[in-house]
Amino acid sequence: MVRVAIAGASGYTGFELIRILSQHPQAELNMITSRGQAGQRLDAFYPAFRGHCSLTFEYPDPDKLASEADLVFTALPHQAAMDLVPELLKRNLKVVDLSADYRFRDAGVYESWYQKHKTPELLPGAIYGLPELYREHIKTARLVGNPGCYPTSIILATAPLLSKALIDPGTLIADSKSGVSGAGRGASLGVHFCEVNEGFKAYKVGEHRHTPEIEQELSFLAGQKINITFTPHLVPMTRGILSTVYSSLQDGVTPAMVDEAFHSFYANAPFVRLCGSKAFPDTLQVRGSNYCDLGWRVDERTRRVVVVSVIDNLTRGASGQAVCNMNLMSGLPEESGLDTAPWQP
Amino acid sequence: MVRVAIAGASGYTGFELIRILSQHPQAELNMITSRGQAGQRLDAFYPAFRGHCSLTFEYPDPDKLASEADLVFTALPHQAAMDLVPELLKRNLKVVDLSADYRFRDAGVYESWYQKHKTPELLPGAIYGLPELYREHIKTARLVGNPGCYPTSIILATAPLLSKALIDPGTLIADSKSGVSGAGRGASLGVHFCEVNEGFKAYKVGEHRHTPEIEQELSFLAGQKINITFTPHLVPMTRGILSTVYSSLQDGVTPAMVDEAFHSFYANAPFVRLCGSKAFPDTLQVRGSNYCDLGWRVDERTRRVVVVSVIDNLTRGASGQAVCNMNLMSGLPEESGLDTAPWQP
Amino acid sequence: MVRVAIAGASGYTGFELIRILSQHPQAELNMITSRGQAGQRLDAFYPAFRGHCSLTFEYPDPDKLASEADLVFTALPHQAAMDLVPELLKRNLKVVDLSADYRFRDAGVYESWYQKHKTPELLPGAIYGLPELYREHIKTARLVGNPGCYPTSIILATAPLLSKALIDPGTLIADSKSGVSGAGRGASLGVHFCEVNEGFKAYKVGEHRHTPEIEQELSFLAGQKINITFTPHLVPMTRGILSTVYSSLQDGVTPAMVDEAFHSFYANAPFVRLCGSKAFPDTLQVRGSNYCDLGWRVDERTRRVVVVSVIDNLTRGASGQAVCNMNLMSGLPEESGLDTAPWQP
Amino acid sequence: MVRVAIAGASGYTGFELIRILSQHPQAELNMITSRGQAGQRLDAFYPAFRGHCSLTFEYPDPDKLASEADLVFTALPHQAAMDLVPELLKRNLKVVDLSADYRFRDAGVYESWYQKHKTPELLPGAIYGLPELYREHIKTARLVGNPGCYPTSIILATAPLLSKALIDPGTLIADSKSGVSGAGRGASLGVHFCEVNEGFKAYKVGEHRHTPEIEQELSFLAGQKINITFTPHLVPMTRGILSTVYSSLQDGVTPAMVDEAFHSFYANAPFVRLCGSKAFPDTLQVRGSNYCDLGWRVDERTRRVVVVSVIDNLTRGASGQAVCNMNLMSGLPEESGLDTAPWQP
Repeated sequence: MVRVAIAGASGYTGFELIRILSQHPQAELNMITSRGQAGQRLDAFYPAFRGHCSLTFEYPDPDKLASEADLVFTALPHQAAMDLVPELLKRNLKVVDLSADYRFRDAGVYESWYQKHKTPELLPGAIYGLPELYREHIKTARLVGNPGCYPTSIILATAPLLSKALIDPGTLIADSKSGVSGAGRGASLGVHFCEVNEGFKAYKVGEHRHTPEIEQELSFLAGQKINITFTPHLVPMTRGILSTVYSSLQDGVTPAMVDEAFHSFYANAPFVRLCGSKAFPDTLQVRGSNYCDLGWRVDERTRRVVVVSVIDNLTRGASGQAVCNMNLMSGLPEESGLDTAPWQP
Repeated sequence: MVRVAIAGASGYTGFELIRILSQHPQAELNMITSRGQAGQRLDAFYPAFRGHCSLTFEYPDPDKLASEADLVFTALPHQAAMDLVPELLKRNLKVVDLSADYRFRDAGVYESWYQKHKTPELLPGAIYGLPELYREHIKTARLVGNPGCYPTSIILATAPLLSKALIDPGTLIADSKSGVSGAGRGASLGVHFCEVNEGFKAYKVGEHRHTPEIEQELSFLAGQKINITFTPHLVPMTRGILSTVYSSLQDGVTPAMVDEAFHSFYANAPFVRLCGSKAFPDTLQVRGSNYCDLGWRVDERTRRVVVVSVIDNLTRGASGQAVCNMNLMSGLPEESGLDTAPWQP
Repeated sequence: MVRVAIAGASGYTGFELIRILSQHPQAELNMITSRGQAGQRLDAFYPAFRGHCSLTFEYPDPDKLASEADLVFTALPHQAAMDLVPELLKRNLKVVDLSADYRFRDAGVYESWYQKHKTPELLPGAIYGLPELYREHIKTARLVGNPGCYPTSIILATAPLLSKALIDPGTLIADSKSGVSGAGRGASLGVHFCEVNEGFKAYKVGEHRHTPEIEQELSFLAGQKINITFTPHLVPMTRGILSTVYSSLQDGVTPAMVDEAFHSFYANAPFVRLCGSKAFPDTLQVRGSNYCDLGWRVDERTRRVVVVSVIDNLTRGASGQAVCNMNLMSGLPEESGLDTAPWQP
Repeated sequence: MVRVAIAGASGYTGFELIRILSQHPQAELNMITSRGQAGQRLDAFYPAFRGHCSLTFEYPDPDKLASEADLVFTALPHQAAMDLVPELLKRNLKVVDLSADYRFRDAGVYESWYQKHKTPELLPGAIYGLPELYREHIKTARLVGNPGCYPTSIILATAPLLSKALIDPGTLIADSKSGVSGAGRGASLGVHFCEVNEGFKAYKVGEHRHTPEIEQELSFLAGQKINITFTPHLVPMTRGILSTVYSSLQDGVTPAMVDEAFHSFYANAPFVRLCGSKAFPDTLQVRGSNYCDLGWRVDERTRRVVVVSVIDNLTRGASGQAVCNMNLMSGLPEESGLDTAPWQP
């Protein structure tokens, strides 16, 4: 039984962690923290959890966390994570950090898109927590930078093609669409029901901070520096991300080679499901689950391949993937606690 | 391990049964039937289930069902259930029937709201599957008539008040609101996205067929014939029912007596959660779960009590309750397979 | 051409006023104010209005308002209206106030549900702006208290029955359901898309501040003091209110008498449409319009009548009705500027 | 006053035509037809229209149409239009056809994506009804092929760039997202509320029939054959299309040149509104209107330009544009009857 805690548990990713951990057969959630809600019972704050979790929010004291847990999920805003994570590592805790603070190999890249990094010395030891790419490294990691939601959906859609060099890396365009929960639980006009409902829009076109994270991983896969065009959009629904990824095939690449690349790359990936060529997934079919479902089509007229990936942004795009990383870091089966069926309808 | 089958598995309640049973630790789903989909793999028909259920829809042959299962869920339309259920009982199978065909004590009532009953002789032995009212009877039943979604929400909101005779039974009014999945999976203009979205309406005002079912149970609880005014409405959301139930207090009844009635009636009900007086539930907090959450308020100005109940219409209002009944009929813990947290957000 | 201004134009009712006035053939919108947005162009703040209104938000200076307008719509929060309205009246302006500050005949009632009234001396001269009840008084009024959204829907559903004494006034129950725009444009967790979407809840049960407003008007119609049970609910949609109103018929009242009461009461009401007995409206069929559509059914079993009313909460429940009042106060046809068809789908 | 009729008025584009025409100051809607609803009053079929249109659906008799109207909107399915349109032209009627039957210059292209064309001889005289491209031709046309919804959004986003040769036409990718009303009013599982709500998906990837229509017009603008990659997606909302169009800039093209291209191309287009560079529109801001709002951004890192366009698929993408074409064909001002503000929120 792994003893775990969540620092910053009052937001949506914190809640999703609690939901998953409350049904995990080999993890024991012992402590949840929130500066704003300290002293408040979770099930008063969030009545859905009555009967599932009787914890009370506490102040994020590192010593208390170290006494209660072997592994801590830090579900804090960017920058706040950098303050707590080093304290946890010092106390010999394992950490899965859901912020962007430990996702980058190069502190300079982080700093040009976010802010000054306080602990750049920790970056070389931090593993990017995408199991399909770094499963073996994660197993021995003490600090995992849990991937962003958009990057998860885009990297999984692209990795097989890049790793087999089937596409021209300079032609990559990712058009992504996310449900509103990706914006977090904070109140603002931008998430007001009447401002979002029955509307669809693009946002942060050409300047979203997930761009360098996507480029870091795609460049690593391709063995060369890649610049991608990435456009996020907001969908009037609560959960789900769909990314449509476009690229041009290299000369001589056939549809069969594309099919084979996906099937071989994900041969042992329990959380990637392939719809296959010319069959495309709906975000509904992965809701509440850790799956990434993929479909693709080669368009011979334009010599492009279109890949569509879907994930649940709160599960695979954040908390489910974090639990998957916990499983790997703790010697548990990858799917432990994550094997319930998606929610539909 | 209970061996089970589902007859009529291609609709929403069938799907919800598969979802729950796929994660049930003590049940084994061995067969699913559908006349329309026979021969089709479930996970081709419904990609969400890839990796969770590898069954193929079969033709509903009673002998085959008897060889594969100890208990059958019949998730068929009214009238179709009456054809299959007797065949299953003859073969010594236990049955949880999700249609209205075995919910009525009096065939005459059924016939005046539905159609001619083909097997009225089975009605005396059929138990109305609301565990909070009939737990002990269900444990030994061979045929359970699983309650309707609206009746579940309304009876649970009213039972404590009637059983303690705190209200005037002649004043009961139930104003209910349901998500669209209650209408089933069949295509029709009435469930077209653009006809439902961004609109709200009442329907079948004063003539919904759940009325006699509600009245049967409330009359039984009150020990007298009750007529209720029941108005269903359609909410532009997928899952959930909220019922607001109004009645006049008997003379001398105090708010504390109302509180006490709820707390004592549900003292041992694992799936009823009490928000308490002046705190009211949201359907979101029970989504995907078997809970019924209840809140109430005594209005001293009008001497009425207002009770608000919420359920997930597909889970507590149909398939979750059916699994709960299976648990009781099979000597399993009431909560087995139903103990995951609600889905939120 | 009536010259008008809007004080407090940056919220949803302000926007709705601008939308309607921008297409009104006999009104000229000359000034819009907002303390928070003063100096900002409307069409920068709200791009939908590009090409329809080139005004800039100004500070709410009474002298400036008096120089630009003959009539002012005050779309301010409760209490803020009381500061500005007297200044406008002093300057000989007509006022339609959309807050609750001038809806009550009795300052004591206002004060027991809201706060201290600053100008109780204005209340006797203020007219409650429901044209179906007070058309002739509105025509000569200088100050109109524009009705609340819930009261509009409930009073119109009930007035014919009370005015003909067909029902027992002590049995009235109004179960109302509103879209989210009724909560206004301010950001809060309660209107966060993910907290509202796919959920349904009751709120302020037995304590909503529209209760005394409803009771004032129904009591006046009935000629006796009425207490009503009123329960508001939140629907996951942007616009629309549906109220389901229950009451017990007096002895001897027939369905035909009920029908006749509705038809005669609304014989000359251009904005009330009768669906008739046993036909019920959907909020979609009045969206974006000033209509109130009504359906009803007498339930002989329980001797109750159920009335269903639908309005658009922003149009008929606020800004459309305000423009209708402006029309009447200005000698214009009641329907001027309000005769576009509802928005569907 | 132009006398008009609608053939095939029972679907969503028919309804939207009726809505717009009911408030058009210079058009008189004299006849609506529907084979399925002939004999039924419009306002019984569609209660929203009570008080706005008292017509009854009639059988589509060409002689009757010719006696009632000067111009007919044919809002029929593909193929059905080909049967009626020639009959109308023979009787000297002007026609705006909302199907795909008269959008193609080359019958062969039509036939390879749709079916055999019955009247290819009419194609040379048919004008593609996009006013920003063909305003002068439309003014004298007798038959206008009203553009498809996706093509309208994509062509308007791309025309300025192609007409000034600022982009490489071989790099065009259009990623489009549509509300559900684009699928029409017919009942099917694909538009069932519970199948669409809370989900997002791509469909007909690489094979949507609007592809050749887009390519016809873009090729014409570019003066060379263009193949485009076009991916439509379904958004869980009723109205609206957003297209995100990607292309690579030609060498030497600067952001200022891109800005200038948009501003000059649309200098005299009353229904195109430019958000400008780095400002992007939301579908909400054009709902219910004939506007196309455009935003764009040059990404210097990748030398691509991203253009985002939004329209209301039923108004600008179908019926509003059809009325605009009627205006031009009838010598009326382009904006007549189309100058109401968008619907928000």
